[in-house]
Amino acid sequence: MGELALLRWIRARLGRRDGRILVDSGDDAAVLRFGRSQVLFKTDSVIDGVHFDSRTARPEAIGHKAIARCLSDVAAMGCAPSFAVVAMMIPRQAREAYIRRVMLGLERTARAFRTSIVGGDIAGHRGKLALSVALLGETRGRPPVRRGGARVGDALLVTGPLGGSILGKHLRFTPRVREGLELNRRFKLHAMIDLSDGLATDLGHLCEESGVGAVVRESQLPIAPAARRLARKDGVSPLRHAISDGEDYELLFAIPRAEAPKVVRSGLGRVIGEIGPPPRRSGGGFGRAGGPAKAVSLLRRDGRLEPLPQSGWEHRFRR
Amino acid sequence: MGELALLRWIRARLGRRDGRILVDSGDDAAVLRFGRSQVLFKTDSVIDGVHFDSRTARPEAIGHKAIARCLSDVAAMGCAPSFAVVAMMIPRQAREAYIRRVMLGLERTARAFRTSIVGGDIAGHRGKLALSVALLGETRGRPPVRRGGARVGDALLVTGPLGGSILGKHLRFTPRVREGLELNRRFKLHAMIDLSDGLATDLGHLCEESGVGAVVRESQLPIAPAARRLARKDGVSPLRHAISDGEDYELLFAIPRAEAPKVVRSGLGRVIGEIGPPPRRSGGGFGRAGGPAKAVSLLRRDGRLEPLPQSGWEHRFRR
Repeated sequence: MGELALLRWIRARLGRRDGRILVDSGDDAAVLRFGRSQVLFKTDSVIDGVHFDSRTARPEAIGHKAIARCLSDVAAMGCAPSFAVVAMMIPRQAREAYIRRVMLGLERTARAFRTSIVGGDIAGHRGKLALSVALLGETRGRPPVRRGGARVGDALLVTGPLGGSILGKHLRFTPRVREGLELNRRFKLHAMIDLSDGLATDLGHLCEESGVGAVVRESQLPIAPAARRLARKDGVSPLRHAISDGEDYELLFAIPRAEAPKVVRSGLGRVIGEIGPPPRRSGGGFGRAGGPAKAVSLLRRDGRLEPLPQSGWEHRFRR
Repeated sequence: MGELALLRWIRARLGRRDGRILVDSGDDAAVLRFGRSQVLFKTDSVIDGVHFDSRTARPEAIGHKAIARCLSDVAAMGCAPSFAVVAMMIPRQAREAYIRRVMLGLERTARAFRTSIVGGDIAGHRGKLALSVALLGETRGRPPVRRGGARVGDALLVTGPLGGSILGKHLRFTPRVREGLELNRRFKLHAMIDLSDGLATDLGHLCEESGVGAVVRESQLPIAPAARRLARKDGVSPLRHAISDGEDYELLFAIPRAEAPKVVRSGLGRVIGEIGPPPRRSGGGFGRAGGPAKAVSLLRRDGRLEPLPQSGWEHRFRR
């Protein structure tokens, strides 16, 4: 079973037993009601050898990434982060100065996004460095933007260029908290998600949750310089990198087509395609065998329409 | 530097920049204000080889322990748990059925304490199984009980017998959520903490935060049968096990002496000693070199007064 299947199994079991769960674990963050407040709740981890390489990454960057991934999820709902707790698993041989630098990186990024770290747990172990961050967020006048609200005819936009993050951006990215808040405040967002698993995968999530399809136009897709540099090294096209690489942490969002020019003029996003009808359900449909294939397409410069290639990257466990 | 020193360093850096942080990381859980609601926020981890041994522990028990430790912290403030998120780090060779059993154990305990799991993150890695749980809690009419409110003359009580948890209780314990809520509702609690690091250590925390000392009476200390069984194996006295062993997850609390008989009659606790004046500050004082030594004493059956022996168990990192 892969990670996604396991997550789906867990999600199906959890259900919604509590009327105060406004949004459950299927979105970027859960949204909970406490009195009149809507509180976002999210956890995420980074592990040495999976999300960073401690032989090359600066310790401050590890701390940054640990919290910035959660910040990005709150940004993807157009909300503001507020409080975090951090669980650290520390190799027994780790040096104190090293751990302090990890914490300083974490703290600096938290402060930059007005987030207070209010608790933590530290455990030494005979393993690698790992950090789990749990983050609370809150609405700022506007309701959280879900993944599932995209409508046929919406314009599809991103906040920045994509691809090649493995060359460095995955450790240094700026979570789009300010952009997410401003987009939610100024525009009528129908759906939003952050690009952690790559455009193809995350656009697939957005389409699946919204019950729609989408077309991305090659001619409009902003390709990061890093994607071109990586392409020169590995022979995979820059386009493919922009589509499939994970960890850009830009926001992907759907808005009414008429609003798109205003967003573009504001500098908060650029159009990369549009939302279309859902794929025909030939005995399958979303979530069934075969999955949501062909829900998202790529319109090439020469006019050909292709399925958006999936990265296919997913943890797998033994049966 | 040890774990405690690192935690202190982190705590000192965090400060209280936000007026909505009612209680910071120095207590069992942080308490945050969202609108009119007070929200408790806590994280804790369990790691294979540190908090459980995957060769002998049932997977359901691992899931139970992962969330029950957080539940115990919310219980220690006399509050109710409400929502949790779970970050799992899973060995690449783990079997699906095994992970499901861990999740089932976690879920069952969450449900038993009316806690909804609203999110999670799963990452496969080349390491051991580890789970980080972050928990939200809330007040039930009464404010959270802090560690720092014990007063000279208070009676000192525990909810159950102590020692020898390593023989099994550390994986199976019942977090004292119901007891904590009922104690907070019915009695005037001055201070409370859960016994995760052992009576000597945690009573030390309570005294340090309260600026008091304490005396524990050997004649009143309830010693768990497991402490006696363990004593027969390792030659350490049952008394010493009851004082020093960690992971009993009973609640330790201080209340006005006049209320103690009512608590005892209610079956919610038994008296083990009393709060006394703080130790004389001979150039040191709490938190300085030398630490809070002699703040807590043990009155032996023969009338001798001894320092309560510290377990001294703490993770240490290289300088």
